[in-house]
Amino acid sequence: MANDTEEIVTELGRFITIEGTEGVGKSTNLAFVKQWIEARGQRVLVSREPGGTPLAEQIRELLLAQRDEPVDATAELLLVFAARAQHLNQVIKPALERGEWVLCDRFTDATYAYQGGGRGLDTQLITELEQRVQGDLRPDLTIVLDIEPEVGLARASARAELDRFERESLDFFDRVRQGYRERINAAPERYALINAGQTLEAVQRDIEQALTKLN
Amino acid sequence: MANDTEEIVTELGRFITIEGTEGVGKSTNLAFVKQWIEARGQRVLVSREPGGTPLAEQIRELLLAQRDEPVDATAELLLVFAARAQHLNQVIKPALERGEWVLCDRFTDATYAYQGGGRGLDTQLITELEQRVQGDLRPDLTIVLDIEPEVGLARASARAELDRFERESLDFFDRVRQGYRERINAAPERYALINAGQTLEAVQRDIEQALTKLN
Repeated sequence: MANDTEEIVTELGRFITIEGTEGVGKSTNLAFVKQWIEARGQRVLVSREPGGTPLAEQIRELLLAQRDEPVDATAELLLVFAARAQHLNQVIKPALERGEWVLCDRFTDATYAYQGGGRGLDTQLITELEQRVQGDLRPDLTIVLDIEPEVGLARASARAELDRFERESLDFFDRVRQGYRERINAAPERYALINAGQTLEAVQRDIEQALTKLN
Repeated sequence: MANDTEEIVTELGRFITIEGTEGVGKSTNLAFVKQWIEARGQRVLVSREPGGTPLAEQIRELLLAQRDEPVDATAELLLVFAARAQHLNQVIKPALERGEWVLCDRFTDATYAYQGGGRGLDTQLITELEQRVQGDLRPDLTIVLDIEPEVGLARASARAELDRFERESLDFFDRVRQGYRERINAAPERYALINAGQTLEAVQRDIEQALTKLN
């Protein structure tokens, strides 16, 4: 027998994140992924971390600002997760629940890479905060654009004034890159590691291949 | 035999915090405690939470600002502990290690009271963050000024534009007050619960009695 109540079941949207060190081509490729998703007739919300809500963007400003005061690494980590809690609960989860796809420039893998790898913070603390803030929510696909830090930093330096992270040493970015690699090695099925030193055409062919496997 | 190396052992300073809901008289009594400490010939650093460093004061501004966006309770909690990590490592610990006393307007008991009691967050999460950020450091004495929230709010409303917390409901402040009481009941030896509804003279007599017991 048919039920009088119409049941509307909205399929959850997909959650895709793009990661990588400075100057790796995230913006260009984010636009490419957005177009790919829209070409499939899906609505997509594009956001970034830290940021994505007025409060979270204010936290981003605090994080990126050059300052005379040394910034405690744990304070930095907690600011990142504060912004994430706000972004996730106010923006990302509601969009996924409406069935939209979410495409985010950086997410928790960046925290493992920058605060874990780069700053050397205990990754167990990051894992605890990830669980507390996100519950079971993880990206469906994380595209990691990978390049020699020297090359990426040369690109980043050319374009604008450097923020507090971009001014870090090459050693720092080597540890960040290593942090991303450790994440990929621990759960390779969730990641697409893309060689961002190729031509843009080759990079986007590889990204498209990863997206196609998503469904 | 005398040792050639002169050993300079600096005694750690004492760490005193003052707590209470809005309009309870913290500023007046903070000044009283500061004078009491200085009269004993001790150097004292007076600070406040959230705040106490340029970055931590910027985080305070984010926390107190009125905003259209609802603030996620976990985001709020993480902002509080981010400011605390910065304040503790840049200001409080170095002062205590120099042998100075530190007198702080609010500290982690306020987090248990406001974010735990008021917002209803899991106190286990607060305890985990406290341990991660503070290690074993706890105040030597916490003076809790206690008053009926109605009375305190009437005082607070009279003096300035209300911040995001001061605009909360009376129910919220009843839960905050209850949060403070639970802290005191769990470890009464660290607290002095002061009836802030008495005359100022009586309040300060009670505070002085608590301070005298400190040594």
